[in-house]
Amino acid sequence: MSISDINTYMNQVGRKARTASRALAAARTGQKNHALNSIADLLDARRETLMAENRKDLDAGRDKGLSEALLDRLELTSARIDAMIEGLRQIAALPDPIGGIFDMNYRPTGIQVGRMRVPLGVVGIIYESRPNVTADAAALCLKSGNATVLRGGSEAFHSNQAIAGAIQEGLEQAGLPGDAVQVVETTDREAVGAMITMPEYIDVIIPRGGKGLIERISRDARVPVIKHLDGICHVYVDDEADPQKAFDVCLNAKTQRYGTCNTLETLLVHDTIAEDFLPVMAKAYSEKGVELRGCDKTCAILGESCVPATEEDWDTEYLAPILSIRVVDSLDQAMDHIEEHSSRHTESIITENITKARRFLQEVDSSSVMVNASTRFADGFEYGLGAEIGISTDKFHARGPVGLEGLTSVKFIVLGDGHVRE
Amino acid sequence: MSISDINTYMNQVGRKARTASRALAAARTGQKNHALNSIADLLDARRETLMAENRKDLDAGRDKGLSEALLDRLELTSARIDAMIEGLRQIAALPDPIGGIFDMNYRPTGIQVGRMRVPLGVVGIIYESRPNVTADAAALCLKSGNATVLRGGSEAFHSNQAIAGAIQEGLEQAGLPGDAVQVVETTDREAVGAMITMPEYIDVIIPRGGKGLIERISRDARVPVIKHLDGICHVYVDDEADPQKAFDVCLNAKTQRYGTCNTLETLLVHDTIAEDFLPVMAKAYSEKGVELRGCDKTCAILGESCVPATEEDWDTEYLAPILSIRVVDSLDQAMDHIEEHSSRHTESIITENITKARRFLQEVDSSSVMVNASTRFADGFEYGLGAEIGISTDKFHARGPVGLEGLTSVKFIVLGDGHVRE
Repeated sequence: MSISDINTYMNQVGRKARTASRALAAARTGQKNHALNSIADLLDARRETLMAENRKDLDAGRDKGLSEALLDRLELTSARIDAMIEGLRQIAALPDPIGGIFDMNYRPTGIQVGRMRVPLGVVGIIYESRPNVTADAAALCLKSGNATVLRGGSEAFHSNQAIAGAIQEGLEQAGLPGDAVQVVETTDREAVGAMITMPEYIDVIIPRGGKGLIERISRDARVPVIKHLDGICHVYVDDEADPQKAFDVCLNAKTQRYGTCNTLETLLVHDTIAEDFLPVMAKAYSEKGVELRGCDKTCAILGESCVPATEEDWDTEYLAPILSIRVVDSLDQAMDHIEEHSSRHTESIITENITKARRFLQEVDSSSVMVNASTRFADGFEYGLGAEIGISTDKFHARGPVGLEGLTSVKFIVLGDGHVRE
Repeated sequence: MSISDINTYMNQVGRKARTASRALAAARTGQKNHALNSIADLLDARRETLMAENRKDLDAGRDKGLSEALLDRLELTSARIDAMIEGLRQIAALPDPIGGIFDMNYRPTGIQVGRMRVPLGVVGIIYESRPNVTADAAALCLKSGNATVLRGGSEAFHSNQAIAGAIQEGLEQAGLPGDAVQVVETTDREAVGAMITMPEYIDVIIPRGGKGLIERISRDARVPVIKHLDGICHVYVDDEADPQKAFDVCLNAKTQRYGTCNTLETLLVHDTIAEDFLPVMAKAYSEKGVELRGCDKTCAILGESCVPATEEDWDTEYLAPILSIRVVDSLDQAMDHIEEHSSRHTESIITENITKARRFLQEVDSSSVMVNASTRFADGFEYGLGAEIGISTDKFHARGPVGLEGLTSVKFIVLGDGHVRE
């Protein structure tokens, strides 16, 4: 679709989203679930169309010379369509966060004051190539009573539009406005600029994609952004650690998956146990093909199975089979290192000492802080949020894995019987 | 104090605040309360100095031709110093929000997942002439474990610096870093620009002052802002309202105080009761000296005790003895009017009908929504928050009156026993 005036078009999109958000905020739980299940049914019935539209994107991507990794992320296989459908049905089965009333108490004046959970309004999602985000993100926003404006990557244009068609039909089948989920019908980059500067129509932006995208959006946005930047996660193995637990957690946190944001990137080891612990650990890592980059002490212990780390290593999210290791002389030095180099995503301490565990939990300023557990657990599903729209490394509004509740706000409600203020 | 390079100076302030915030986040409740009580004692002991410094500001203000209203707000009387001291002691007596752990549950994998309340980090407060804000805001931030950078109005410079001296001494008496509360030592406007664009040092900005100040800061800030713009509050008197409750609430909501943001500005009345209700109400308002501006129907009923409202009236926060009145034909028309004209601060319905009350509570999208109660109750003290740093008309993070909890975030905590992810 060619759209001549992007700003006018985006203003229309925003206005329609704002209008639809009012109907969605008042929608009954059953209606929202009906829409989610209808969308799942429609995606199921339209597999052939979805894959045909996806092939257009794949062909165009190959012509444009996209990497195999990007083409793989772009592809809508039958299994991925199954996963989208399953995701929609799971979200339909989650409890509805909207309308819940809590902290309802009488005040000395006689009024009753409580709080009610309400939608944020309109959520804007800006994402890169994976077309399944279109269905996942729309479903989370819909369940939490928000209207959504989705702006996917240009390389997934046809796939996203095909999914959008099913979403809008599913909404209408449930008696909800089709405009409650709009997928931007242009690949013009100007649309992103317009989207992030319309506080009158969009209440929050969630960018999902590479660091460059997220930094650019955070810098230029005129609306709040739920953003997830680096995951430079640490495990600190204390001198009072149980060696088996330390081994299990350090191996899992680094090697269970390399490309995820909750993967261990820097291992801190207390020096009184380093000579025993590091060689055992290094052997296991080397069997997995993990490259080790250590501080001087680490290299002295590990010899040629380790290369010297540079200052840059401590600030690097490898997302790869590489691990930096530093020997520290105390819990305080470990926490100082974390304070300086962590991206405040997830850190874990391995210790049997409850006093040190309590200090670590209280003093480490990250979105997830753990004791004797793998950093890989930092995830909305593992935490029981039911689903996750992202992981916030900010402290304002939502922090850590963001589920349905992160897409809501609360208002105060007051009940009286003609009460007036004295 | 003359400072030649404002940006360098503000960077130093920011860096010191960030460092102090770490100590404050780890401070024990007793230490924070000790500091608050010490500051109260010091302000009490230094009344003469405070008033002498305040007189410098008052003299300069008079020379500059400040209005009597502004001079009045600027003055630190003995009663106002008492109120500051009392406020500090009250905040010391509030429960500490920091470190509280909640929603701690076992997950199917065997890990325990919960959430811990933590400070935001560094809070920046930008405010206008009232010097008491220096003590109030510092106290709330301190109790919630945040470092604070305060930038008061230039007209209150000497008063603010004198209060700042007591605050820093009080912090140090409790063994906390004096830098935990810094009052910017320059009146240069550039300092504000620097303060709102340092996300590396300041986590949130709270502007307190006129609409112009808040709009300017919100537009230019590169950090999140907890902002409070207009309070265009509505009361809707339904056809099933109890006449006495309607009368009491409408009179109180408009006339108990005129200059507050939770004061009634537009009254909506159902047309089947308008002929009975409006003349009684108008008589009471006229006895209080309230000017009435009505829609055509209102003017037809009230005759010469009412002037015609213009379109602009529906969007005006008078903060004065003026009220706009519109007759509506249904709850839906009342809610449509509110949707279009409300600033989303506080709205109240007067009705005995529970179905209409439930709809109003659910569908009206304002930070406080009430049934049969005066809008004047929308206040942190009345709601039992203990204290209030402002009223947020945004939905992101905090909404409505912001107490200690609005100055905090939560992190996830995970306890395991060597658990790894499968």
